[in-house]
Amino acid sequence: MTQPQAASGLTGEMFLGERRVLGTEGTVRAVDPRTGEEVGVEYGLGSAAEVDIAATLAAQAHPVYRATGPEERAAFLERVADNIAALGDTLVAQVLLESGLPEPRVRGEIGRTTGQLRLFASVVRDGSFHGARIETALPERTPLPRPDVRQRKVPVGPVAVFGASNFPLAFSVAGGDTASALAAGCPVVVKAHEAHPGTSELVGGAIASAVAESGLPQGVFSMVYGEGPVVGSALAAHPAIKAVGFTGSRRAGVALMQVAAAREVPIPVYAEMSSINPVFLLPGALAEDAAGIADGYVASLTTGAGQLCTSPGLVLAVAGEGLDTFLERVGEQLPGCAAQTMLTPGIHSAYEAGVERLVNADGVRVVGRGATPAEGAPTEGQALVVTVPAETFVANPALGEENFGSSSVVVVADDTSALVRVAQEIEGQLTATLQATGADHEAAAALLPVLEDKVGRILFNGWPTGVDVGQAMVHGGPFPATSDGRSTSVGTLAIERFLRPVAYQNVPADLLPAPVADANPLGIWRQVEGDLTRD
Amino acid sequence: MTQPQAASGLTGEMFLGERRVLGTEGTVRAVDPRTGEEVGVEYGLGSAAEVDIAATLAAQAHPVYRATGPEERAAFLERVADNIAALGDTLVAQVLLESGLPEPRVRGEIGRTTGQLRLFASVVRDGSFHGARIETALPERTPLPRPDVRQRKVPVGPVAVFGASNFPLAFSVAGGDTASALAAGCPVVVKAHEAHPGTSELVGGAIASAVAESGLPQGVFSMVYGEGPVVGSALAAHPAIKAVGFTGSRRAGVALMQVAAAREVPIPVYAEMSSINPVFLLPGALAEDAAGIADGYVASLTTGAGQLCTSPGLVLAVAGEGLDTFLERVGEQLPGCAAQTMLTPGIHSAYEAGVERLVNADGVRVVGRGATPAEGAPTEGQALVVTVPAETFVANPALGEENFGSSSVVVVADDTSALVRVAQEIEGQLTATLQATGADHEAAAALLPVLEDKVGRILFNGWPTGVDVGQAMVHGGPFPATSDGRSTSVGTLAIERFLRPVAYQNVPADLLPAPVADANPLGIWRQVEGDLTRD
Repeated sequence: MTQPQAASGLTGEMFLGERRVLGTEGTVRAVDPRTGEEVGVEYGLGSAAEVDIAATLAAQAHPVYRATGPEERAAFLERVADNIAALGDTLVAQVLLESGLPEPRVRGEIGRTTGQLRLFASVVRDGSFHGARIETALPERTPLPRPDVRQRKVPVGPVAVFGASNFPLAFSVAGGDTASALAAGCPVVVKAHEAHPGTSELVGGAIASAVAESGLPQGVFSMVYGEGPVVGSALAAHPAIKAVGFTGSRRAGVALMQVAAAREVPIPVYAEMSSINPVFLLPGALAEDAAGIADGYVASLTTGAGQLCTSPGLVLAVAGEGLDTFLERVGEQLPGCAAQTMLTPGIHSAYEAGVERLVNADGVRVVGRGATPAEGAPTEGQALVVTVPAETFVANPALGEENFGSSSVVVVADDTSALVRVAQEIEGQLTATLQATGADHEAAAALLPVLEDKVGRILFNGWPTGVDVGQAMVHGGPFPATSDGRSTSVGTLAIERFLRPVAYQNVPADLLPAPVADANPLGIWRQVEGDLTRD
Repeated sequence: MTQPQAASGLTGEMFLGERRVLGTEGTVRAVDPRTGEEVGVEYGLGSAAEVDIAATLAAQAHPVYRATGPEERAAFLERVADNIAALGDTLVAQVLLESGLPEPRVRGEIGRTTGQLRLFASVVRDGSFHGARIETALPERTPLPRPDVRQRKVPVGPVAVFGASNFPLAFSVAGGDTASALAAGCPVVVKAHEAHPGTSELVGGAIASAVAESGLPQGVFSMVYGEGPVVGSALAAHPAIKAVGFTGSRRAGVALMQVAAAREVPIPVYAEMSSINPVFLLPGALAEDAAGIADGYVASLTTGAGQLCTSPGLVLAVAGEGLDTFLERVGEQLPGCAAQTMLTPGIHSAYEAGVERLVNADGVRVVGRGATPAEGAPTEGQALVVTVPAETFVANPALGEENFGSSSVVVVADDTSALVRVAQEIEGQLTATLQATGADHEAAAALLPVLEDKVGRILFNGWPTGVDVGQAMVHGGPFPATSDGRSTSVGTLAIERFLRPVAYQNVPADLLPAPVADANPLGIWRQVEGDLTRD
C-alpha cells in the first residue's frame, strides 16, 4: 500500500513553455482532505501576464504543431503517456495526498489517463477524424461545370483546459480535454486545479518533457496556476485561445461561457458541468429483484463519495410493493456505508449544505443515511437518500439540482406514464438509466425518445458511474449537463470539438494537404464522390 | 421573358402549422426595388404570441417527425422540391418583382433550391449522417469488462430559420438551413424576410402543402412575419427552439447570438454574417495574365450587384508591373459595368454610405467606378474599386469591413512575405482565393496554413462567387464570417449543425434505434469495433 506523500523536487512553479516561473500574485498550498491541513510546497499564483505569455507561446507553436504528421503526433501522445506511467508510485502518493481518494481508484485513474492518450494516438493514426471528402471536377456538368472541391478538418488553434477536482488525472492536466486537443493538433494551455497542485506539477512536467523530447515547439504545452476570476477568465478571454475545455461546477462553467461569448471574437466552450443522472426503476425490474437493484444503487451512489458527474442523484419509480422493498433495502444498506473523505473542505461543506436543504424541503422523507463520519475527520461525507412524491418534485426545481456528493432523491410516481411526464420536465443530463426487464419494454420504449432529447447516454440494467473510454461513448448532454450538447468529453468523438472544416476548390495537386491529396498518402477512409473508400 | 408580377391569391397571412393567420402588429408590403414603390398585398406582422403558437406546434411535431424513417423523410423533402418547382413562372415573376434580380439568376436559384432539397433527400437515404458507431461488450476485458456501447446522432429539436435578402429562395424559406434542418429531423419555424414577403408566402405554401400531403404533423413547418427585435428575438428566445440558422448582417447575427447566449438554456446559433473574401494576386499569375485576371475580378465583383456573401471585396497583391496592368485594366472595364438594381432601398443606401466612407478614407485612391445609375432608378448600385497601401490597410480596420455591394479594396504590398503578414491580420472570412501559376507555389504554400486558420474555403484561379452545393463544400468560417466556424451552411455537412450524439449502453436489441441495431436494417455505413463497414 502506497502512503500519501508529497513528491520531492516540486517547485510550485508554472510551465510557460519550457520556462518554469513562480507566480507572484499570492500562493496556494494543497490541503490533505483527510486532515484539513496544508501540505507540500507553496504554489505561486499567476496573473494575466503569465496567461499572455503562455497563450502567445501556444499561438507561436500552432503553425508547427498543426503541421505534424500522424506518426509524429501519435508518438508524442504516447510519449506523454509513457512519461506519466514512469512517475509510478511518486504520482500515486501525490494524488493520494491531495485528493483523499482510495489507492485502487488512483491507480485505475492513471491507467485510464494513459490509456486515453494512447487511444487518441490510434485516432490520429486512423485519420478518419480528418473528415476527408473529395468531389472532383465535372467540366461538362450543366447548367454550370462542377469545380474540384475537397474538404478536411483543421485544428481550431490553442485550447484552454480547465481540469476538474474529482478526477485529478483523467479530467485534469493530461485528461480527456488535453488528449483530444493535442490529438486534433491544438496546443494546450492548462489552468491547474488548486485542489491538486502537486499532482498537476508532476503531470505537467511529464507533458513538458514529452514536448522537449519530441522536438516540438515549447508552446505546445503550458500550465498556469491562479484564481479562476483572474487567471481563468484571462485565459478564456485571450485572443490567441480558440476553444475552452472545462469540467467543474455549473457556476464556474457558466462564467466561462459568458467570458467566451463576450469576447470580440467569441469561441466555443465545452464545459461539462452538472448532472443528477436519473435512474428509472420500471415495475417489472422491481418485481424481479428490488433488493438487488437497491444494492447496485447504493454501491453506485457511494462510489467515490458520490463525487462523480455520473452519480445517480435521482431515482424515479412507480409506487408499489416493489418500490417499498427497494426503499426498505436502501434504508437497511446505507448505515453500513462508511463515511468517505471528500476531495476538498469546500466540496464537503457545499455537500453538507445541500443535504440540509434536501432534508428540510417540503414533502421530503429521509429513507436512510450512511454511517456517521469519524471523529476528527473534517471532510468525510455521509450518504443520504430521500424520497418525494412526483408532484412535489416537479413543483420544486431545487430538488432537481445537483448536490455534488452521495445524496440522492427517489421520486415516486403513480404509474409509468407519470414517469414519462416527469422525464419531460427534467433538465439536460449526462445519463439516464433504465432498470427494466422484458415486461418493461413498452414503458421503456415510451421513455426512450424523451430521454434521447435530454441526455447524452442511455443505459440499461447498469449504473451510470464508470464511463468507458471508447469509440462510441458519449459523455455530454444538453445544458446544463454541458454547455454544448453537440459534443462529448469522453471517447474518440471528443476530438471533433477542436476541429473545423475547410474546403479546397481547384487547389493544385502539389499544394493539397495530405488528407485530401489524390494518392491518399495517409491511407485513410475518405468520402470520394459520395462513397466511403480507402483508395 | 417573365414580367415581374405579384402572384394572385396571396393573403399576407402567416403559416402557424396548417392555420393561416393575419398578424395584427402592423403591416408591411414588398417594395419593387426598381421603382421604390410598394407592391402586392399587405403582410400582417406577428408578435410573440404567434411565435409561441408556432414554436409550440413545432415542439408537438418533434416526437413524430424525428421518428420518420429515411424513405418517409426523403420523400417529404422531394415533395417540397416538387411543390416549389410546380410554382413555375408564378414564383419567378414574384421573385423578380420583389428582388429586382435578373431572370436567369432567379431561375438558377429555383434550380439550386430544389436541387438542394433533393441532395438532402439523398443524404437522408445514405444515412452516414447518423454517425453510427458500435462497440460490443467484452465481458472478459481487464481490469473492467467493456459494456456494449453504441452511438448515433439525434435531431436537436425545432430550429428557427432566418432567411437572407440576397437569396430569396436558396437562403430563405426553403433554403439550405431549412433543408438541412428538415433532413436532420428537426421541425422548422421560419421568420420570413420582409424584403420578399410574397416569395416567402409562395414557398411557405409549398412546404406547408408538402407537410399535409405527406401526412406529417402540421407543426413540422410554420412561418411568421414580423420585426426582428420583436418576432425574431422572441423566436430565438423561445424555450421550444433548440437551434438557430441565420444568414444576414453582422449586426443582426450578433444580436441573435446574444439572445441565444442569454437564454436560460443557451442554444447554438449558426449565423452567416460578413465576409470580404480576400483574393491574392500572386506575381507569377499577374505576370502571365494581368488583364484576364482583371476581367474575371470585375465580373465576379459585379455579379448580383455585389450582393453576395462571397463577393471579392478585398484584393491583395505585390506592387509592380503586373499589378499596374491589372489596375489599369480594372479602371478601363468598370465604366462599362452597368449600374444594377439593389435588393432594397435600405441595402442601397447602406452601400452608398459605405462607398462614401471608402473614397474619403486616408490613403485611398479610386481605381474606377461602374456606370452611373440611370435617372429615376433609385436603388441602382455603382461598382467601385479603390487601392490602398498595405500599411494603411492594416492601420485602418474600417477598410476591412464588409460593404455589402460591388465595392472592393485593392491592397498593395511590397513583397509576398508582406502578403502573408496582411493575411495574418484579417478577420475570419468565408473564402480566400489565390491567383497563382506554378511559379507562385512557394508563396502559395506560405499563405495556405495562414488562410486555413482564417477561412472556410480556399480556391485557386477562380472567383469566390458561385458556391457549388455538394458533398465537400464549406460555406462557413471563423467569426465574423459566421458565428460558429465549426459548421457550413452550404453542402451536405450542413446537416451536422442540427444533430447531437447519444450513446446507448447495454440497451436491449429490440429497443435499439435502427441506425445502431444489430442487423443494420438501414444498410448504412457504420463504425463497428473501430472499422467502417456496411455489414
